[in-house]
This record gives sequence, structure tokens and C-alpha cells, in this order.
Amino acid sequence: MRILGIDPGLATMGWGVVRGKANKPSLIACGVIETAPETAFPRRLFEIEREVGKLIEIYEPDAIVFEQLFFAKNVTTAFTVGAARGVAIARCARYTQELYEYTPMQIKQAVVGYGKAEKSQVQQMIKLLLNLPAYPKPDDAADAVAAALTHYNAGRFAAEHLMK
Amino acid sequence: MRILGIDPGLATMGWGVVRGKANKPSLIACGVIETAPETAFPRRLFEIEREVGKLIEIYEPDAIVFEQLFFAKNVTTAFTVGAARGVAIARCARYTQELYEYTPMQIKQAVVGYGKAEKSQVQQMIKLLLNLPAYPKPDDAADAVAAALTHYNAGRFAAEHLMK
Repeated sequence: MRILGIDPGLATMGWGVVRGKANKPSLIACGVIETAPETAFPRRLFEIEREVGKLIEIYEPDAIVFEQLFFAKNVTTAFTVGAARGVAIARCARYTQELYEYTPMQIKQAVVGYGKAEKSQVQQMIKLLLNLPAYPKPDDAADAVAAALTHYNAGRFAAEHLMK
Repeated sequence: MRILGIDPGLATMGWGVVRGKANKPSLIACGVIETAPETAFPRRLFEIEREVGKLIEIYEPDAIVFEQLFFAKNVTTAFTVGAARGVAIARCARYTQELYEYTPMQIKQAVVGYGKAEKSQVQQMIKLLLNLPAYPKPDDAADAVAAALTHYNAGRFAAEHLMK
């Protein structure tokens, strides 16, 4: 089972692919999709859609997991981050109905066992759980890996997190 | 010249196509794209993308105009409306770079000549300017027609409203 995790954003969208094999999760790849602030907004959305499409084609995930957005400095920011997330979701929806969503707190709870864990604790646990030489960088990629790992660990409770 | 106007929303997205011919604008068609609240969010975004794609294929607009979002009840609403708008913009960006944006105030200013005009005044002016037997319904369709009309009237100032 391959799980694609996505941490949505307009300038930087983190992604990570986790595979479950013999009851152990392992990291296949992770990274970020970046769009330049000087690029026109429609073009940035177009680029996000295209890059998410490439990830789907390359990794053929069985499930795709989004970190849920909660926070935005203001409504204007929420419109733009929401747009980036929406475009990514729509692209994924064209590929599968296996779309899931976890809150940042649920992710911390699943990875560290404590919903208010520090970022550094999450990173250390990711390194440990996936048996990595170092934790994934940049932070957005690590967040996406954590989302994928959360879904892997959710097991039979995963269905509760289907995106509604 | 054919202009597609879009008033973005998740449950209801208004659209209207205005044509300029012999220095007079006329209405080709207008309506709304609706998605059901009981449908899963990713599917709703997928439907919006598909329907916007159909409008592009049918009307082959030379320019596409969005009414700019400003307001949202809260950040959560801004995320979802922003997502719907983002998906529509990304679909349009795949077709053309001629994407424009006007604020509600700029639209009222252009159509009625007064930025704080009432909705009913906007509707009456649309009816008059497009020589219609009645003003377009529902409201979201009328708003989209007003956006298209604003772009038609912007003439050589239109470039200032290119979506950035």
C-alpha cells in the first residue's frame, strides 16, 4: 500500500510517499512543490495541478492524505491557500476517491502520541518510525510524510477520516 | 469578442457570457453551476472543474473575468470558497492567460456608475445595457453577467485588471 501525503500551500506544498510492507512503513520519497510569488496566481495554480498530477502518475498511490487547514493569518490568505489546496484536491479527485484528511493535532497524536507535540518531536519520531538516517527536509515535506504515516497507522479507523 | 464572467462559489457559481458586436454588448447565455452540500468536497470541486471546462468548450471565450472575493464569514468558509474559485481559475488557466479580476465595487461602479449601488440597481442596469426583457436570474448568474459587462466596458483599461 502506497500513501501520498500532502501538506497544502501556495508557495510551498509538501509531499511524501510512504509504503507499507510486511507491517512496516517505509519512506519512498518526499519533497516540495514550489511556485514563485512573482508568477501570476492562475499560473501558480496551474503548476500545482500539473505537479500533483506528476506525483500521482509516478507513485500511483492507493490513498492520498491531506493535512487539514485550520489556520490563516486572515481571510485573504485563506482564499489563496484554500485555492492551492482545492486545486490539489480536485486533481486527486480525478484519480481516486480514496482521499483522507487529518488535523495537525491528529497527526501529532498519531506520530508522537501527544497532540500538542513540538515540531522537533514530530521530526524525530518520523526519523525513528521510518528508520531514516536524518529527518526529511524541508519542514513541509516532513509534515506531508507525517500525514501519510498517520494514515498508515490509522488502520481500520482510516475510514473515519475520508474527506467529506 | 466573447467574455465569460464568473462569480465564484462552492454551492453556487454564477456564470454569464457577454458578446461585443458593433460596439454594443449583448448577452449570449448565463446560469449557475451548482454542487450539492451532501456531495463530498473533492467531488464538488471535481464537478466545478468539469462544468467550467464545458463552458469554455461551448463558448470559447476570448477573456474570462472573475468577481474578486473579499468577504467570508470566517477562515473556514474562506478555505472552501477559495478552493472552488481556485479550481475554476486553474481550469481557465489551462485554456487562456486572458484572466481578469474586478472587485464587487469596481463592478458596481462600471455598471451603475456608483460603487456602493444596491443589488437591484445593478440588475436594472444589466437589463437596460443588454436590452433584456427581464434581468438574469438567479442573482449569482446576474453577478457573473455584471462582471463580464464590466470587462467589456473597461476597454483599454482592462489590462490593469489582469489576474496577478
